[in-house]
Amino acid sequence: MARTVSIIGCGLIGRAWTIVFARAGLEVRVWDADPAALASARDRLQETCVEAGEDPSILARVTLAADMQSALEGAEWVQENGPERIEIKRRIYADLDRLAAPETILASSSSALVASQFAEGLEGRHRILVAHPVNPPHVIPVVELCPSPDTAPEVMDRAEALMRDVEQVPVRLSREIDGFVLNRLQAVLLAEALSLVEQGIVSPEGLDDTVCHGLGRRWTLLGPLATINLNAPGGVADYLDRYGPTMARLSDSAARGEAFTREAGEITAAALPGSDRVAELSRSRDRKLAALDKFLKSLKEEK
Amino acid sequence: MARTVSIIGCGLIGRAWTIVFARAGLEVRVWDADPAALASARDRLQETCVEAGEDPSILARVTLAADMQSALEGAEWVQENGPERIEIKRRIYADLDRLAAPETILASSSSALVASQFAEGLEGRHRILVAHPVNPPHVIPVVELCPSPDTAPEVMDRAEALMRDVEQVPVRLSREIDGFVLNRLQAVLLAEALSLVEQGIVSPEGLDDTVCHGLGRRWTLLGPLATINLNAPGGVADYLDRYGPTMARLSDSAARGEAFTREAGEITAAALPGSDRVAELSRSRDRKLAALDKFLKSLKEEK
Repeated sequence: MARTVSIIGCGLIGRAWTIVFARAGLEVRVWDADPAALASARDRLQETCVEAGEDPSILARVTLAADMQSALEGAEWVQENGPERIEIKRRIYADLDRLAAPETILASSSSALVASQFAEGLEGRHRILVAHPVNPPHVIPVVELCPSPDTAPEVMDRAEALMRDVEQVPVRLSREIDGFVLNRLQAVLLAEALSLVEQGIVSPEGLDDTVCHGLGRRWTLLGPLATINLNAPGGVADYLDRYGPTMARLSDSAARGEAFTREAGEITAAALPGSDRVAELSRSRDRKLAALDKFLKSLKEEK
Repeated sequence: MARTVSIIGCGLIGRAWTIVFARAGLEVRVWDADPAALASARDRLQETCVEAGEDPSILARVTLAADMQSALEGAEWVQENGPERIEIKRRIYADLDRLAAPETILASSSSALVASQFAEGLEGRHRILVAHPVNPPHVIPVVELCPSPDTAPEVMDRAEALMRDVEQVPVRLSREIDGFVLNRLQAVLLAEALSLVEQGIVSPEGLDDTVCHGLGRRWTLLGPLATINLNAPGGVADYLDRYGPTMARLSDSAARGEAFTREAGEITAAALPGSDRVAELSRSRDRKLAALDKFLKSLKEEK
């Protein structure tokens, strides 16, 4: 019998997850509390497959479920993609924990809420975690796996194994932290970026060029720590001896939360494509991300 | 007559610059104060060309000069790659300013010193700037152009035009700032990265995975500001309204200079390849960077 997962909530992220699991050969049972979202799901899935260069025949493994209960049938994993509102999440997890078989893992796509906020007090809190994707997960593989204090290590092991089985890249956190890892890294860089733009030191285009034609390329191939490991003859320890004091001085003089101003937003908005182009450019971004993923996999194979 | 540039200092960065200019069809005159560096320059250039997939016949446009004076003959641009020590830089720029034709631009690869530190007091201080590459510039195109308070705007215009002519990506800064743009962005992200690792929230590998299989991919395709411009339906202003307070909170709780500790370095070093592999992995990185550059250019053409 094919392995089965359940997708609860089939907006943008739920549909991307559906593709991740279906293309890996799993059966996917999809449900959404909103009948309209469910009714249009198959057409939207078809579109997303075509745009990402995926074979739409993988959607034969997708079943639309009439209710939450039947969506959970035989599922080893539930990927929940509901709204990021604590009262809604609590209600969903109470239902999921009551209806799902005891061995089913319940994973949330939440980016802002941590698992303890909606798992606390539930009988099955040991099987609840956050599996935070980067939008959209069918073209960006990283998934942050974030336990609550109650999540069982064995559940984390199974989560990690499943993510590898479906060719995502799991990153396991040891405990809850506000913003997880990815958004903490994004936040500090954005603060300094917006501040440099607001001070007029660099244009928004120049700021983006610095990353996409510079720093970002190394980070995409190696990550930031493996990058500095090659930036001194003796590796990362040598790097920190040589450049640590300079980098510390730069961080200490960098902007923080005060940089997220309306002014910085206005300067940036004036330099970038208008919001009428967000949908079109997002599709273009996703096509490029899919191509980049293939390119990076080809590099890996050749090494 | 072919356009001519001069490379002063032919270590790793000087040789990479030589390839940048020679492959764009410019004549390159190379000199180094160290006779041994100069003597081995042609062999090393040949090796670097082969490794980066460049046609070594471009090196026919490279002349090794016997002294600084003859290296400067007919040069519209000097790219200086001397040691990052202020007393050495001051001596070099006094010599360059005395020997170079008045219209020649003098650009330093300095990453730590700002131009006013070595240009101040010189007659030609208006023609001196920093043109900071990312190492190595023949496979990473960004170049930060950083004026001193004395650098003439017309010199900055010519610098920007030359960088575009040789297919680098110039980023123009409006004024001097410690670390320029790139290293300021790198510093804040590294501080938080090292802190998360030292706290044991994520492993060094997990931290790198978060960037190279997640955040870094968007940043490489779009840059950080164009990324958030697509992360809310109404663009960047809408993003800051929705998520600004969260990102501000995350930045305010992030690590700063205190994170560059020996402990963080030891945890990271233990997880990454040892320093005996730095040279080999750097060559592998550069080959991948060259391939990534070609891939990104192919994406651009198709749009």
